[in-house]
Amino acid sequence: MTNGVTGGIRKRVLIVGGGFAGLKAAEALADAEVNVTLVDRRNHHTFQPLLYQVALAVLSPADIAQPIRAMLRSPNTQVLMDEVTGFDTAARRATLKSGTVLEYDYLILATGSTHSYFGKDEWEHLAPGLKTIEDAVEIRRRVLLAFELAEGQMQETGRHPALNFVVIGGGPTGVELAGAISDIAKLYIRRDFKHIDPATARVLIVEGSPTILGAYPEDLQQSALKQLAELDVQVRTNTRVTDVQPGYVVVDGHERIDSVVTLWAAGVQASPLGKLLGVEVDKRGAVLVDEQLHPVGHPEIFVCGDLAHAMSEGKPVPGVAQPAMQMGDYAGKTIALEVKGEKMKKPFHYHDKGDMATIGRSAAVANVKWPFKGHLSGFPAWISWLVVHIFFLIGFRNRLSVFRNWAWTYLFFTDGSRLITGDMQLPGWDVEDNPQGALTTKPIEAVSQP
Amino acid sequence: MTNGVTGGIRKRVLIVGGGFAGLKAAEALADAEVNVTLVDRRNHHTFQPLLYQVALAVLSPADIAQPIRAMLRSPNTQVLMDEVTGFDTAARRATLKSGTVLEYDYLILATGSTHSYFGKDEWEHLAPGLKTIEDAVEIRRRVLLAFELAEGQMQETGRHPALNFVVIGGGPTGVELAGAISDIAKLYIRRDFKHIDPATARVLIVEGSPTILGAYPEDLQQSALKQLAELDVQVRTNTRVTDVQPGYVVVDGHERIDSVVTLWAAGVQASPLGKLLGVEVDKRGAVLVDEQLHPVGHPEIFVCGDLAHAMSEGKPVPGVAQPAMQMGDYAGKTIALEVKGEKMKKPFHYHDKGDMATIGRSAAVANVKWPFKGHLSGFPAWISWLVVHIFFLIGFRNRLSVFRNWAWTYLFFTDGSRLITGDMQLPGWDVEDNPQGALTTKPIEAVSQP
Repeated sequence: MTNGVTGGIRKRVLIVGGGFAGLKAAEALADAEVNVTLVDRRNHHTFQPLLYQVALAVLSPADIAQPIRAMLRSPNTQVLMDEVTGFDTAARRATLKSGTVLEYDYLILATGSTHSYFGKDEWEHLAPGLKTIEDAVEIRRRVLLAFELAEGQMQETGRHPALNFVVIGGGPTGVELAGAISDIAKLYIRRDFKHIDPATARVLIVEGSPTILGAYPEDLQQSALKQLAELDVQVRTNTRVTDVQPGYVVVDGHERIDSVVTLWAAGVQASPLGKLLGVEVDKRGAVLVDEQLHPVGHPEIFVCGDLAHAMSEGKPVPGVAQPAMQMGDYAGKTIALEVKGEKMKKPFHYHDKGDMATIGRSAAVANVKWPFKGHLSGFPAWISWLVVHIFFLIGFRNRLSVFRNWAWTYLFFTDGSRLITGDMQLPGWDVEDNPQGALTTKPIEAVSQP
Repeated sequence: MTNGVTGGIRKRVLIVGGGFAGLKAAEALADAEVNVTLVDRRNHHTFQPLLYQVALAVLSPADIAQPIRAMLRSPNTQVLMDEVTGFDTAARRATLKSGTVLEYDYLILATGSTHSYFGKDEWEHLAPGLKTIEDAVEIRRRVLLAFELAEGQMQETGRHPALNFVVIGGGPTGVELAGAISDIAKLYIRRDFKHIDPATARVLIVEGSPTILGAYPEDLQQSALKQLAELDVQVRTNTRVTDVQPGYVVVDGHERIDSVVTLWAAGVQASPLGKLLGVEVDKRGAVLVDEQLHPVGHPEIFVCGDLAHAMSEGKPVPGVAQPAMQMGDYAGKTIALEVKGEKMKKPFHYHDKGDMATIGRSAAVANVKWPFKGHLSGFPAWISWLVVHIFFLIGFRNRLSVFRNWAWTYLFFTDGSRLITGDMQLPGWDVEDNPQGALTTKPIEAVSQP
């Protein structure tokens, strides 16, 4: 079984993963004399930097996701919705879940990363993370449902569990989720309820290390803390979550913090496909690659994006969108040169334009490295974030829709995509679910200042 | 426990159901001296006439659904996301799933209808119907997944199960679904696949009665048949589905028709809440009401919309959006008059503006009764349908977005919201799931002309 599209002596390139790296690689190969097969478990590419906006009901899934087939129209490229289950790197073959076997001359592996619960997989149901459209819709369901359940219970009993939202992890995703929950509660849905005051919601970030946004310069970390405090988001650093239960979390082994919705933004591990290659991986499961993005001994394999443990200028390349796109582009261009009998002359170099994280409506931090160097905070950082992300969405037909939805929500504090789909259960809300008995209504403050 | 918002001697109106009837009733009561509580299981109103466009990947869920709270902002109105589990009509009380008990002076019951599988509930998983956003997303998943699985299997084995889509039921929903599947296969995704030709897909409507669109005049039925034939949609009338299995359906007890995706548009039954009232219901479970929409002996109860078995000018009122809105409005206005000490003078009268059903891109039939009388077919009917539905969406902030998505898809044959979320399983696709062995690849024609 071959996977040639037009047959003949063209080299076959197999790209696994339709994220930023995989798409960029396919684009770089669109005019090359090769046959490209891109395999992804999903039919759509997800614009991950905006996933949290779906989770927090500002955008719709279709605003930030697009069918991979529709994005890759080159005649030399085919797309398969399937899952790789094994590699035979000696024979240059990949086996798919459906049973299909794909032969390749070049392999570009870019399946990214997934949540890591540090061996506590039973926490996943209680504290969902944010990697996929499904994750985002589930988080949206839980956050909105908490307010609905509180309204109903207030009506019935005159009290309700404290609306505590605990975000585990103080990286960019945790900060974005926490800020957005605070915005929802204090701004967007405040007028919607008659019995409860959504603004009484408390949001807490629990971070194990001494600082939030560990990858940012200290002044921006401080600025982020200040902006979070203005949103009433509490932050506890140097605090380890030792248990997650329905309705609460336990920190540092002894302190219980009630939580109607717990979210996971703490750890990622590399996609398991890295290990299937049979080459060296780091402790996160990421594949160690050389300056050309090859694992040792495999010049026909490129590992790109979050799945790669790559170095650039002596520093590890971070696992975010920009370097993923640059790696995919590098791998694609290298192959395009090689099939013409030429050679890629330069090693991979990460052109770091900087990082930015939003904190809420009009709040953000940006560590800009290109086209100028500087640290931005607050509104200027937020505007930069907006412009950069809308610019990124070029190629997404939904750019205008996304912009309009943002503008609308920003100006009118209303609507968005606040649909609750799925069932009405929230783990830990019902007393029966809670092995420790009824939830206390202690606010986080009472617990967090012993 | 009372459900008064401001207390005092205001009458309490309980509206159950946030569909067209319930919302219109609440609107009619927005300025009345009453306290209104609207209870719905979901947090959103669904614009059901466009659900099939979500199912067939043109629109996003948020385009046609909106949080009920955001639609009802009157200070006299509260919204509860909960489910009514019982009535004590003597004591004028409703019990909710959460345990809350709501007392009322007036009850407006408008919980609509749901699919009826005629006692064969095990068919539901194999042939989903289209009533909710979740249903629409599930149908979208199945239809798009069938093409993805075929592409993968073609690559592996050089063949794939025939892409037969069977729609059970030839009413407006069945016709709309069938036409839209044909459009998707022949127009929108045709360029997306390298191994299969989506245009080989076959769509079949199976209808038990002698005609499709039974409620329409005969010339429009004929026109609809002709338009469906132009889309290659086959129609078999006088044909009863006697079994639904993974991968196929059985008709008239002996004939097997392969089907990769089977959809249910055959029967509805009234919401079970009608029976909970303890009053007379018809065989569909709809509540028999008098000219004022009251069940016998209950002048404080109104039953509206699809749940009501109501008559107007000697004819049964159909279970569609227009009469539901008019009934809700009538019930609300009646109460508003009564609390002022006045009386509603006229019985409920259904002002029938006509019916329309789309058949596909640029194809439709319309039986117009107001503002003029006439039968429209083809493009003029389709344009009327478009205008009427966009007009209906007034109040939905997403009207422009809906229009833009339509226009875009119409002009460029592309994109829409073609996301597959959820798992990759399709009942009957895998041989293991199919008790009858592997699917045959006989097209429907071969079977349907014995």
